[in-house]
Amino acid sequence: MPGPIDRIPNLLARIRRAVRRPEPEALPTELREQRPEDVADALERMTKDEALESLSQMEPDMAAEVLVELSDDTAKTLVADLPDPTVAYYLDVLPMDDALDLAEDMDPERLESLLMVVPDEDAAEIRRLMRFPKGSVGRVMTERFFEVGPETTVEEILLDLRLAPEEKYETVNDVYVLDGERRLLGLFSLRRALRAEPRTQASQLLRADFESAQADEPEEAAARRMARYGFYALPILDGEGRMIGIFTGDDAQEILRDAESKDVLALGAVSGGVESYLSLSVWNLVKRRAPWLMILFVAESMTGVVLRHYGQQQANEKVTRLLLLMPFVPLIIGAGGNAGSQVTTTITRALAVNEVSTGDWFTVVRRELATSILIGALLGVIGLLRAVYVWGGAPQVGLVVGISLPCVVLWAAVVGSVLPLGAKRVGIDPAVMSAPFITTLVDATGLVIFFEVARAMFGGSLA
Amino acid sequence: MPGPIDRIPNLLARIRRAVRRPEPEALPTELREQRPEDVADALERMTKDEALESLSQMEPDMAAEVLVELSDDTAKTLVADLPDPTVAYYLDVLPMDDALDLAEDMDPERLESLLMVVPDEDAAEIRRLMRFPKGSVGRVMTERFFEVGPETTVEEILLDLRLAPEEKYETVNDVYVLDGERRLLGLFSLRRALRAEPRTQASQLLRADFESAQADEPEEAAARRMARYGFYALPILDGEGRMIGIFTGDDAQEILRDAESKDVLALGAVSGGVESYLSLSVWNLVKRRAPWLMILFVAESMTGVVLRHYGQQQANEKVTRLLLLMPFVPLIIGAGGNAGSQVTTTITRALAVNEVSTGDWFTVVRRELATSILIGALLGVIGLLRAVYVWGGAPQVGLVVGISLPCVVLWAAVVGSVLPLGAKRVGIDPAVMSAPFITTLVDATGLVIFFEVARAMFGGSLA
Repeated sequence: MPGPIDRIPNLLARIRRAVRRPEPEALPTELREQRPEDVADALERMTKDEALESLSQMEPDMAAEVLVELSDDTAKTLVADLPDPTVAYYLDVLPMDDALDLAEDMDPERLESLLMVVPDEDAAEIRRLMRFPKGSVGRVMTERFFEVGPETTVEEILLDLRLAPEEKYETVNDVYVLDGERRLLGLFSLRRALRAEPRTQASQLLRADFESAQADEPEEAAARRMARYGFYALPILDGEGRMIGIFTGDDAQEILRDAESKDVLALGAVSGGVESYLSLSVWNLVKRRAPWLMILFVAESMTGVVLRHYGQQQANEKVTRLLLLMPFVPLIIGAGGNAGSQVTTTITRALAVNEVSTGDWFTVVRRELATSILIGALLGVIGLLRAVYVWGGAPQVGLVVGISLPCVVLWAAVVGSVLPLGAKRVGIDPAVMSAPFITTLVDATGLVIFFEVARAMFGGSLA
Repeated sequence: MPGPIDRIPNLLARIRRAVRRPEPEALPTELREQRPEDVADALERMTKDEALESLSQMEPDMAAEVLVELSDDTAKTLVADLPDPTVAYYLDVLPMDDALDLAEDMDPERLESLLMVVPDEDAAEIRRLMRFPKGSVGRVMTERFFEVGPETTVEEILLDLRLAPEEKYETVNDVYVLDGERRLLGLFSLRRALRAEPRTQASQLLRADFESAQADEPEEAAARRMARYGFYALPILDGEGRMIGIFTGDDAQEILRDAESKDVLALGAVSGGVESYLSLSVWNLVKRRAPWLMILFVAESMTGVVLRHYGQQQANEKVTRLLLLMPFVPLIIGAGGNAGSQVTTTITRALAVNEVSTGDWFTVVRRELATSILIGALLGVIGLLRAVYVWGGAPQVGLVVGISLPCVVLWAAVVGSVLPLGAKRVGIDPAVMSAPFITTLVDATGLVIFFEVARAMFGGSLA
């Protein structure tokens, strides 16, 4: 069934048409019913000049919202060419976390000069948050949480909610109770407050069994924790244990989505960030793929070394047995590679979503070995039958295939399970143990197994 | 840095110790500070009898919450062995969507008899929701949303909120305004209501530009829409346009997480559901992997056919040229497979997260071809140099490698981009175009390219 993405080509055409019309209201009218996420997707499909022209014709508030929904690469390019007053206006009207997103896409010097013209309070907040390192949860938190003292009453809470300017709090689902030193005593839901008597004090409502995060904790770890326990927001503390902000669910979701994409791409041996596909230039696509491909290519040369090694022992002779075995080479390394891919994909996924930890390594390896013995035996029987009955090979060749297949599959399972677990253990992202990487590793070693089984079977000679 | 999962082995040991202690309060005391998600992870690592014993010693409310956090497989096994009154109690105390989760894990006849003993209203709700097909959003929605009429005032809303039993509404963040025929007129946030005058009517507060979903829409599509636009809940309508429930953000997140896992595993050629790794038996692991592995194995035999074909043309002769080419076979098919994996991983991911639609196919294929020409040329040069200078091959062999590599990489890009797009186009999940599948497809065809280039280079003969 068609999803929102399938409406984008149509929306793109309508935006292009509206931009060309002479009436200044043509584009704002066209976009009145549209969501910024969709308009951003349409802009991703435009040239830079088209996108700039479209942005300039939109209502400024819509343009600001569209800009933050664009991929970072596209936003960066466009912001660089937008006039200063426009960008300053965007920084001003956007919610603080979106403004920060935009600020990150800018040249630091330009940002400094722009911060001169946005309201002081906003500029100070942007500066404060940008001091936290990229990728830390402090960088993506908001300072605009709903805080009260332990003696604040429900009546006062509701009055504050009614009278405070709307942008003072990013979300009011949870009320945070802080003591005089800004230490978090506990929190309660607004709903709970609404069900209490007006004179009830915050200290009577709060639950003290909350989870929190340090501002310098990696954003992905904090986001995973939120998702695991189903929280909508996580209080953020500084080094002295004072509460300085909250990390909200929508930001956590975005971070997890990007982390997933990175993991998936890494599993397919594509390195780099999580820029949207269409926003990447061909040159960028090459840069994300060529390094791994070349590493794998060099590693794969090992198979050639192995083949040459076994081939040269028969130099200048009739190499009938070797030639009989050759057609099975891709079959053997293919089966090893595919089995290894399955194992490494399963393990890295289980590690990524915290189904297993490195402490479970013994259980994992034991299960993978048991699984591979069954699968390997199955493939061995099929391989043997195929070699002998379909291709009419000698029974000995069939036996070589039938014996080496389970060995290669078992070996692939060891490599495919131990490497991601070992990587995680020493602090490397296990997703870099990509399926192609495991496949390539297993290729050459699998061939050695195959030829050694053959040599044993043929009494020491492949000639 | 250690995440929650790393605490599980320790928690597991403490639960085991507490279960063996004679005091009935030992386990409840041990678990007082624990979250059900963590306890569930510990139970996943126990034998069935241990897990049943632990559940029976927990506070019943904790046991119920732990049960719904278990993977479906484990929960199903345990529920089957729990006494009826216990399960009926769980169904009663759990939030409705969790109770439904539990109900799904039960034998239908047993469920019917249990529904006799839970409160009528709850039983009726479970029966209503279970009429929607599995995988539809109707199955995972909750009927317990906060609805008002267009003339309801803010004062009345706050009174209702204070006096209604807490379980009447699953969430109160949004207030839904329904007309007399239960058609959704619009919605507004509770925060907006709290900022309005007490006499304000719902009709003055509502926004009518809401998104909704039909109850029979697939849950994943609805969840993706919610995530795309950052909604916390989505109103669900029946076939006549009446509002019958809401689909909440926590359920949407869980569905997306499972869908991601399924996609990742499919990319690695592992089929089946999203059961947690440790909850699957070895036999289940075999069932999830063996089918694809056997299909790929049979497909991979095509490489053998190709090799035999080129080999047999030289039967009973000295096959020097063929032997010179053989060491390069794994290199050629490895490069094609790895390049194809990268392309198919990138495209299926972009399709899954809606960065591209099938309508973008021309752009995608054009970019992939351009990328592959650059990457292929690079690999070709390296391959040529390696063949001639490192392995001291004839210049002709080097040329064969250098020319066929870009061709194979280009061909892999065509297969790796067209197949996922085509699958999506005809309504098949593009994730089944797994990296190993593309690799295997490219292997045999890549060999044909290699040998045909060689034949042309050597003037028609490989002998």
